[in-house]
Amino acid sequence: MALVNEHYLKLKAGYLFPEIGRRVNMFAEKNPEAKLIRLGIGDVTRPLPPAVIRAFHEAVDELADEMSFMGYGPEQGYEFLINTIIEKAYNPLGVQLKSSEIFISDGSKCDTANILDIFALGNIVAIGDPVYPVYNDTNVMIGRTGDADAQGYYRGLVYMPCTEENGFIPELPRRKVDIIYLCFPNNPTGAVATRNQLAIWVDYALRKDAIILFDAAYEAFITDPAIPHSIFEIDGAKRCAIEFRSFSKTAGFTGVRCALTVIPEELKAYTINLESVNLNRLWNRRQATKFNGVSYPVQRAAAAVYTEEGWRETKEIIDYYMNNARIIREGLASSGLTVHGGLNAPYIWLKTPDGLSSWDLFDKLLSECHVVGTPGSGFGPSGEGYFRLSAFGNRNNVLEAVDRIKNNLK
Amino acid sequence: MALVNEHYLKLKAGYLFPEIGRRVNMFAEKNPEAKLIRLGIGDVTRPLPPAVIRAFHEAVDELADEMSFMGYGPEQGYEFLINTIIEKAYNPLGVQLKSSEIFISDGSKCDTANILDIFALGNIVAIGDPVYPVYNDTNVMIGRTGDADAQGYYRGLVYMPCTEENGFIPELPRRKVDIIYLCFPNNPTGAVATRNQLAIWVDYALRKDAIILFDAAYEAFITDPAIPHSIFEIDGAKRCAIEFRSFSKTAGFTGVRCALTVIPEELKAYTINLESVNLNRLWNRRQATKFNGVSYPVQRAAAAVYTEEGWRETKEIIDYYMNNARIIREGLASSGLTVHGGLNAPYIWLKTPDGLSSWDLFDKLLSECHVVGTPGSGFGPSGEGYFRLSAFGNRNNVLEAVDRIKNNLK
Repeated sequence: MALVNEHYLKLKAGYLFPEIGRRVNMFAEKNPEAKLIRLGIGDVTRPLPPAVIRAFHEAVDELADEMSFMGYGPEQGYEFLINTIIEKAYNPLGVQLKSSEIFISDGSKCDTANILDIFALGNIVAIGDPVYPVYNDTNVMIGRTGDADAQGYYRGLVYMPCTEENGFIPELPRRKVDIIYLCFPNNPTGAVATRNQLAIWVDYALRKDAIILFDAAYEAFITDPAIPHSIFEIDGAKRCAIEFRSFSKTAGFTGVRCALTVIPEELKAYTINLESVNLNRLWNRRQATKFNGVSYPVQRAAAAVYTEEGWRETKEIIDYYMNNARIIREGLASSGLTVHGGLNAPYIWLKTPDGLSSWDLFDKLLSECHVVGTPGSGFGPSGEGYFRLSAFGNRNNVLEAVDRIKNNLK
Repeated sequence: MALVNEHYLKLKAGYLFPEIGRRVNMFAEKNPEAKLIRLGIGDVTRPLPPAVIRAFHEAVDELADEMSFMGYGPEQGYEFLINTIIEKAYNPLGVQLKSSEIFISDGSKCDTANILDIFALGNIVAIGDPVYPVYNDTNVMIGRTGDADAQGYYRGLVYMPCTEENGFIPELPRRKVDIIYLCFPNNPTGAVATRNQLAIWVDYALRKDAIILFDAAYEAFITDPAIPHSIFEIDGAKRCAIEFRSFSKTAGFTGVRCALTVIPEELKAYTINLESVNLNRLWNRRQATKFNGVSYPVQRAAAAVYTEEGWRETKEIIDYYMNNARIIREGLASSGLTVHGGLNAPYIWLKTPDGLSSWDLFDKLLSECHVVGTPGSGFGPSGEGYFRLSAFGNRNNVLEAVDRIKNNLK
């Protein structure tokens, strides 16, 4: 008799965004005339830059000709893309990487989920609270936790509250942990970590032989030159950290699918008998066995992001979104609302007014303003009383949404 | 201290194809003048059909315009592709499916690997021998086995020998199993299963509440109209089977990446307390949490395979490869070699002559004929004494490879 993985049954309701989708669809069906503005899920809206489109087309044409046809590529990604990333995205930060240290994938969601494959179940894992739900849910699904308690915390995970009091930067956990997820610029709070704040974590990880899983999906939105873009800008991080990056938000690839994971050659974890094991090699085995590489034209399109023209066009789009972030942030603040984030990140973390719960504000803004955001409590118990707005919308929609919210909440 | 998943350390050497790649690269470096012909890894060589290229370009152009831009798609795939597959690929077989029963993915390798996520570790799993290595290795990696024995069998897995004696169709296992991998047309042996042979397995699975994982990646190469293309052509299979299909071989998408998994709504497995759980729902949760959908232009390109023009062009390519198969099969047979497969499958399963081991023949053909094949023993102990040749090469290469092998082995 085939048995299911019962850990899945511990999960509450749906994954956050499908649940939001369900409520939005129900509202839209009942109110077909309502002009909904979606600032919920962090999905981009600007078209791909022309240089990227051109490279995409050229690669598709290569597939039309026997002489230039490309079949299976390397599971790890093509060197043309890997070397471009090293040269254009890492070297300018002072970070040197080997091509064997970068693994191209079809998304950071997949990577941050799949990375658990190479670690023992017995590791103690720390995640932020609030947090990108994938970190939490994949640890539940793989069997690292017990059931959720009444608040929504799963037994066995260490939650690190990120609150107004600590500036949304988690403190070192009181109990020793083995694997730590960090995401900066943060989803959902929009907080960023300074060099010193990251150094505290790197120091902790090196002292405890812990591994930091550093999600840098939003690094392209950092505007303050003092804020690190990569964990590897911190001394010693190559001995304790894995970094995830994505083209999704950086270059509008949410529907195109391309991301990368960096695992330095010197990064080690241990067997139960304290033999050290090279994590780059383990991940390589995982990818070679369970993954078959990213679509060739997609990799060509991604590489074009870093051409001179491609990056200029990409940067314009990033600036467009960051202007949206400023509009949301300043607009809501001007009407007396408390807002965080939105300075070096495309997310605004709005404190709900009048003690409204996150889902109450969600339903209120949906039904009264026809604006879709994301309830903070969907990211974890400490997100209760907050609401995430995404800056990835179209400018006119953003302006109108801010007006509607201001008029409604003032 | 972060601990690794030590199950990975049980794996022998590299995954088969990287190991072949290593040997081939070493040979090529030492013999730069040798004109290598690669009939090893089952990678396609014909360009994409024009109708597919056209749809691919059109979808890329949609991403260039704000009005038609596509961001995140459904994790399960777009309905335009799912409904096309149901109508064009399943309905003609007499198989009715709902759109919720098909999940689009970036490859059958990923799907056949990831499907293990939703099952309990305690299930007893049966795989063929020889077998597509992913089935074996992913069960090792997830922790379902002990170490390999001297022959290469992992303790805890049930291996079903597929030999000349049983026509390469596995017999029902003597001990009860819960999950059974079947692959027809078979990789690596090229064997196909008749309706009656599949019905025996469906009957077994229904009686034992077991689940069949049916890999139909090569169904498009079936030429005999009596051979089923889908496990769902067998009565009752919707209550005991998951089917995997791919555009990789069917339409030359090895470098483009698109596949699908079918999980019928009525398919159930159980909790330890014998409560039934809907597997479609579990897989949906898995995909929504750990996957972010297939590249939009890729899904448009895949849908174009099933347009009238697209299918005519695709069918021509399939016929081209099947003519290759015939040339290899008849050529080698005519010089007295024993060959299997190649009639309803793009793989020829050659019995090594003179008692040569599979790797001996690999090294001999590589060094003396400059032809790359795949050693049968790489697919499992019962593959020893066999050698897999792929029909996916260019015609002239196939003709020349057959000549070289005939001259060398006669």
